[in-house]
Amino acid sequence: MRIEDVETPAVLVDLDLVEANIRRAQSLFDQLGKGFRPDITAHKIPFLAGLQMQAGAIGIACQNILEAEGFAADFDDILLCSHLLSPRKIARARPLAEAGQLTVVADNPEVVAALSCGMAGTDLPMRVLVECDTGMGRCGVQSPEAARDLARAIAAAPGLEFGGLMTCAAPQSEARVEAFLSAAAALCLPDVGPCRVISTGGTPSLALVGLTPSITEYRAGTYIYNDRALVARGACTVDDCALTILTTVVSRPTPDRAILDAGSNSLSSEVSGLKGYGMIPAYPRATITGLGGGHGHVDLHQCPTRPRVGEKLQVIPNHAGPVSNLIAQVILHRSGAMIRPAELAARG
Amino acid sequence: MRIEDVETPAVLVDLDLVEANIRRAQSLFDQLGKGFRPDITAHKIPFLAGLQMQAGAIGIACQNILEAEGFAADFDDILLCSHLLSPRKIARARPLAEAGQLTVVADNPEVVAALSCGMAGTDLPMRVLVECDTGMGRCGVQSPEAARDLARAIAAAPGLEFGGLMTCAAPQSEARVEAFLSAAAALCLPDVGPCRVISTGGTPSLALVGLTPSITEYRAGTYIYNDRALVARGACTVDDCALTILTTVVSRPTPDRAILDAGSNSLSSEVSGLKGYGMIPAYPRATITGLGGGHGHVDLHQCPTRPRVGEKLQVIPNHAGPVSNLIAQVILHRSGAMIRPAELAARG
Repeated sequence: MRIEDVETPAVLVDLDLVEANIRRAQSLFDQLGKGFRPDITAHKIPFLAGLQMQAGAIGIACQNILEAEGFAADFDDILLCSHLLSPRKIARARPLAEAGQLTVVADNPEVVAALSCGMAGTDLPMRVLVECDTGMGRCGVQSPEAARDLARAIAAAPGLEFGGLMTCAAPQSEARVEAFLSAAAALCLPDVGPCRVISTGGTPSLALVGLTPSITEYRAGTYIYNDRALVARGACTVDDCALTILTTVVSRPTPDRAILDAGSNSLSSEVSGLKGYGMIPAYPRATITGLGGGHGHVDLHQCPTRPRVGEKLQVIPNHAGPVSNLIAQVILHRSGAMIRPAELAARG
Repeated sequence: MRIEDVETPAVLVDLDLVEANIRRAQSLFDQLGKGFRPDITAHKIPFLAGLQMQAGAIGIACQNILEAEGFAADFDDILLCSHLLSPRKIARARPLAEAGQLTVVADNPEVVAALSCGMAGTDLPMRVLVECDTGMGRCGVQSPEAARDLARAIAAAPGLEFGGLMTCAAPQSEARVEAFLSAAAALCLPDVGPCRVISTGGTPSLALVGLTPSITEYRAGTYIYNDRALVARGACTVDDCALTILTTVVSRPTPDRAILDAGSNSLSSEVSGLKGYGMIPAYPRATITGLGGGHGHVDLHQCPTRPRVGEKLQVIPNHAGPVSNLIAQVILHRSGAMIRPAELAARG
């Protein structure tokens, strides 16, 4: 079966490209001797996480407790990159921590206290990394001194073990990341010992990992698929984009307009500085100007050739990550030859 | 149980407000003697569609075949507002059409041919409305004459029955909608008979339905929940917004910044001219400046009082519709007293 025979809209993943994307990233970290930890939130598919591990990843990262639980059966080194506060979520994390599978993060004393409370009486402490704000302006302690102070609090908290440092790096902030993390690690050393894990990440800056020599591991998610935003940044080419939305042209109301049967229910509506809601490689001058729930509206006025009603098109989304929040499965293929559907685990 | 005890992020729906929103809209159509057809794509919850029918709706509208199938057990008048082209989708629609439950739309001869082909040999034709572009610039035939021509094609196609006209109205285009639809209906009359259904719709213009006297029915979806975009348009007030995302403040990295545990996985990333990704009624001067997959980043610098770590907040999303593409269930409550979860049907 060819992917052209798949019902639309559908999300296609080209395994040849996925494997090439995995190989390319992993070989970079292998050469540098740094650990690579793929963030499975980008795809939520255990089979793909298995490919990432087989290629040499040291473990996986994820973004919520549901994902950690969903992957715990098959993956024994999971970094949960969000702050657990609720007693019920911490109770769900506890068995994974006691099995030695789970590391979590914290950037404030309330989270440390909640984690410690949830691990009361354990013989197997939960590993906690201090999240550092190295310039992204989101989560994280604001200075190396604050990182040291929170590391102390973690080391002193019953049921917890200080594991090291973690940051979500802003693009083009490598010098700042390195300065912050190396200073924080140096401050921690006399008080709480060495940082066994120093973790940064982000697909856009993946190729610049050599500029942060202090780290022990790097996290990235979207690199496995790539997307239009990464093409725009120069982080990959259109030919590296493994995830596409297959859609049918269901109407051509005017010569300059096409209507697709994919809308914000599969393409997601993230724009973030790009023009339009995705790109159509077969018609590169077409612009997806608007999305309804189940419709995409395409402006063809700059296209020398134009699609007919019934034609199936592949669309590269602006951001691949949000697509994985919208769908139950992807169709795996190799250059258009269908292999099989793959279900997403841990769907919220 | 109070909604404050619900694990976050969660999507809350206040039934008191839902019932008030349903009553207010239905009473308008009752007064005008026009049919009202709620679009269930906005919520995808059969229980809520049941409330809409009990209030007096003539039937429901939906956007794809999965939704039509998901609601067919309990609803016997379904208008599917998208263009079916694929033989497999039409085969799924056929039993609903033959049960007299389903009406579909078309705006081009290819769709009419595909529908006719899929209904070959039937004794019970499928009702088809001609979709008209009355100014929205998306789907639809471009003139009343083109509507008449397509109506003829439908009437002549084996297995199909011409049912009337349908449009998705642009805001503030009532005069144009009325002119187009009344002209098209007049052109159709001598050729294919009266338009039994003339259907327009859209929550933003719901109160202006009186300006389109030619219609027989009106469709709206988001009115059941309302959202920040509708508040911004003046179509409702903040107090009419029935759907909120419950989220926890998991970090306060700086005095001016809060991190929520709800991101684009529950709030959706639609902005469409608004500032930020939702509003927080308890802190009206807070701005949700960015969304990660599972994080929301809030700028508090204009807030005289500020939330603490662990505090739970309700967020009104920019657009309620896309939220229903992201979630498996909502939590029904009345003014904060939890009733029960309600599952979404027909999740794509």
